[in-house]
Amino acid sequence: MTVHTVRSLSAHVGGTVLGEGAESVVTGINDLRSAQPGEISFLANAKYEPLAQASRASAILVSTKDAPRFSFTRIVVESPSAAFGKISALFAPPPVRDEPGIHPTAVIAPDAVIGEGVSIQAHAVLAAGVRIGARCVVGANCFIGEQTTLGDDTRLYPSVTVRERSVIGARVIIHSGAVIGSDGFGYDFDAKTGRHVKIAHTGNVQIDDDVEIGANTTVDRGRFGKTHIGAGVKIDNLVQIAHNVIIGPHSIIVSQTGISGSTSLGRYVTLAGQVGLAGHLTIGDRATITAQSGLNKDVPAGAVLSGYHAAPIRESLKVEALTRRLPELVERLKALEEKVRSLL
Amino acid sequence: MTVHTVRSLSAHVGGTVLGEGAESVVTGINDLRSAQPGEISFLANAKYEPLAQASRASAILVSTKDAPRFSFTRIVVESPSAAFGKISALFAPPPVRDEPGIHPTAVIAPDAVIGEGVSIQAHAVLAAGVRIGARCVVGANCFIGEQTTLGDDTRLYPSVTVRERSVIGARVIIHSGAVIGSDGFGYDFDAKTGRHVKIAHTGNVQIDDDVEIGANTTVDRGRFGKTHIGAGVKIDNLVQIAHNVIIGPHSIIVSQTGISGSTSLGRYVTLAGQVGLAGHLTIGDRATITAQSGLNKDVPAGAVLSGYHAAPIRESLKVEALTRRLPELVERLKALEEKVRSLL
Amino acid sequence: MTVHTVRSLSAHVGGTVLGEGAESVVTGINDLRSAQPGEISFLANAKYEPLAQASRASAILVSTKDAPRFSFTRIVVESPSAAFGKISALFAPPPVRDEPGIHPTAVIAPDAVIGEGVSIQAHAVLAAGVRIGARCVVGANCFIGEQTTLGDDTRLYPSVTVRERSVIGARVIIHSGAVIGSDGFGYDFDAKTGRHVKIAHTGNVQIDDDVEIGANTTVDRGRFGKTHIGAGVKIDNLVQIAHNVIIGPHSIIVSQTGISGSTSLGRYVTLAGQVGLAGHLTIGDRATITAQSGLNKDVPAGAVLSGYHAAPIRESLKVEALTRRLPELVERLKALEEKVRSLL
Repeated sequence: MTVHTVRSLSAHVGGTVLGEGAESVVTGINDLRSAQPGEISFLANAKYEPLAQASRASAILVSTKDAPRFSFTRIVVESPSAAFGKISALFAPPPVRDEPGIHPTAVIAPDAVIGEGVSIQAHAVLAAGVRIGARCVVGANCFIGEQTTLGDDTRLYPSVTVRERSVIGARVIIHSGAVIGSDGFGYDFDAKTGRHVKIAHTGNVQIDDDVEIGANTTVDRGRFGKTHIGAGVKIDNLVQIAHNVIIGPHSIIVSQTGISGSTSLGRYVTLAGQVGLAGHLTIGDRATITAQSGLNKDVPAGAVLSGYHAAPIRESLKVEALTRRLPELVERLKALEEKVRSLL
Repeated sequence: MTVHTVRSLSAHVGGTVLGEGAESVVTGINDLRSAQPGEISFLANAKYEPLAQASRASAILVSTKDAPRFSFTRIVVESPSAAFGKISALFAPPPVRDEPGIHPTAVIAPDAVIGEGVSIQAHAVLAAGVRIGARCVVGANCFIGEQTTLGDDTRLYPSVTVRERSVIGARVIIHSGAVIGSDGFGYDFDAKTGRHVKIAHTGNVQIDDDVEIGANTTVDRGRFGKTHIGAGVKIDNLVQIAHNVIIGPHSIIVSQTGISGSTSLGRYVTLAGQVGLAGHLTIGDRATITAQSGLNKDVPAGAVLSGYHAAPIRESLKVEALTRRLPELVERLKALEEKVRSLL
Repeated sequence: MTVHTVRSLSAHVGGTVLGEGAESVVTGINDLRSAQPGEISFLANAKYEPLAQASRASAILVSTKDAPRFSFTRIVVESPSAAFGKISALFAPPPVRDEPGIHPTAVIAPDAVIGEGVSIQAHAVLAAGVRIGARCVVGANCFIGEQTTLGDDTRLYPSVTVRERSVIGARVIIHSGAVIGSDGFGYDFDAKTGRHVKIAHTGNVQIDDDVEIGANTTVDRGRFGKTHIGAGVKIDNLVQIAHNVIIGPHSIIVSQTGISGSTSLGRYVTLAGQVGLAGHLTIGDRATITAQSGLNKDVPAGAVLSGYHAAPIRESLKVEALTRRLPELVERLKALEEKVRSLL
């Protein structure tokens, strides 16, 4: 194993060492708070300067601009974050090696088509008509339903469930516990019997290339047609995507957000965490909805909305600030009422 | 395969073709936005008229009332939605065929009782004392715990986990990733040791006939007694049902809603998406709680509540509208203060 | 089987029977609402007195203070809740017995190290380098990734997924469907290509002794370093813990709450249900955040915060009360405007 020192790592990222201890051996990386002697860290945000000052790290990557303010051992670089990424790679544990091949306990339909270099792990189940592209990894305990297809280099982590007729592109990553293609939530109410009658969901889910889907996220199949997740979309954990939702390419959906049926998002939309969208909405390209907001109206391209019954963020922040001043406003109203009474 | 045309489909639903192209061959169905030539769609909501006008569908089902306004090829019927349902069935892919029988990789306790015509799929695990009704489907990778019973014609999609002693009725559908019967979240705080001591949850879960439970939804078992989901209740994805909750028959619980311990819902209650209910509440029959609301009080039958610390929806909407007018109200207050000052 | 009577149970908890029917046979326990003749219940909260009055239970445990107010058959004790816990244990069904041993369908890497008395159930998968402490239970369909370690007496319920290099302590309980160690949600945006580039998450998850994690909860691995859940922390169902979050010992996280990346919680923090925390925050010891609140600022030790952009609960409740009075305040403002107009 290569021995790294503060100086050798500085050289690796084209930096300059300031302070004592350039020859200290470095055995790992860590954040400012957790770092121990022998570890290296980085400062990318002024907010964390007190943590940098108190850090036990053997050296901290800092920017040229920040370097003069400090006395601790530091490696001065243009971009501490980028340099740290480069150094991280030196210390990263070797990634899990997924042996190509089909584990003997996997259950694979006779007519399934498996590409070259694929790894299918223990207890995975591939139903009739499944097609798996080259170099895919299907983790342990995954289920892939009838006629579903995976493009090349796609990875399902263990315990992913994909229902029938899903169409999944290349280089897609789906994390453990995600469910793709469950039935949409739709019923007709039968007033005669007082019962909710299930609406058949005969559509499917299409996930385009380079999508990533988080752990325990759910994506329902279309009632007819498809639920469609565009290329490059990134979806966090525990997100709900209802039937017939369309998510435009390169959109970002943060954890615990829910999108109701038939709502359509443009390209590069950002939904922060715990957002809720009503059904049948159209959200324009590059719109951003802040955390915990609720939306029940269409959103124009580029808008930044916030709040329950979300409004443009400036308006929301102003209203919120005034709401917090209500106690003072009520006092002012009372004072005024008394003055006017004295005038009458 | 039968060849369908606009005219033959119109005849199938007792409609009348207006506009050109009655002999066009139809090969599928789709929504207005996605439909291509060769596909048929429907217009059931005035909101979508522009989409209908721009649709590439070979024909669109419209109502008698709407038909005269349009010039595109249309099939005129009384209920476009119902007619579309009938036509959809002609084009639906054949449903997945679940072969009756027990897959050789399933692990089934010797004393489990399995009804006639049941399909138990690959890697399913049935523990001691399980009883499975006739014609049930237990999907791949499902786990069914000790002494749990399933009524006739119930279906567990792949990767469902049901803990011990659950009592599940007939014609129940449970979607992938759902967890039934996990321990409730309850601890006694031991002030002496500063530790939370787990409260045993020795109760169970009872799910009555015709219930549907969404993907990755969790239903905790009772502390004692049971968590009880009444007949015909429909629960969406990623919903949390805590210990000892009672949900009355035919209630609807939309995605990402959470119901805290021992809360009791009447019949035909509707909880929209991302609603949160505190524990030990009583919600009356046919009450409706709108999306993202929070409830910490009992709700009378028939009430429609909305908002954080939810209030009757009329009140909530009025308060919300006035809140948005706060900037203007504050300006008015300032103007008044100046006038009064000039009068003193 | 022992026959229990109201009198024998009263003796078991050192109580006194008041009212008729001390010799009635008791065959079970239940809550006040559901209890039938032959069952025993308890009253610990004045709110439930009407339920106690109407209960069909053969006897109800009540406190010395409450006992004189009632005429129903009651067992008088100091703490009805504690006494009920003792009686519950007499009627609890025998717990599921997890046979020590490795089920023949489990797939275990040759170099995995398995402690004494461990139960590894059907279709569980243990990858290379896994170490399992003594008396652990690994449920059916669980996956444990490379190099992950479990301390003694830890239990994974069926269908838990733990990714590589997780470090899990002793006496930890993880409920079904939980996912531990999924990748954090982080991307660098490449403006040249317009694509989100995945940031490697080479860290891991550390879960200390006596932690409990709910069903379908997700805990992401660190970008580098670790996501760390301290000793005695209790996490409910469907909670999201992002990369590099630190949760101090004995904190309580209720269902459907989400904590964003690198946020750090002190000891004995309580986050109620559906709370959302932004990233990079510091929450002080013993702070409490009420249900559905949103936090985007640091919180001092001991604070009790509430609301969207959460504020101290007193302030929040006052603002909320005044918000509800807005219709009246606007009327007062209007009246004042008219009076002032008449004065000018």
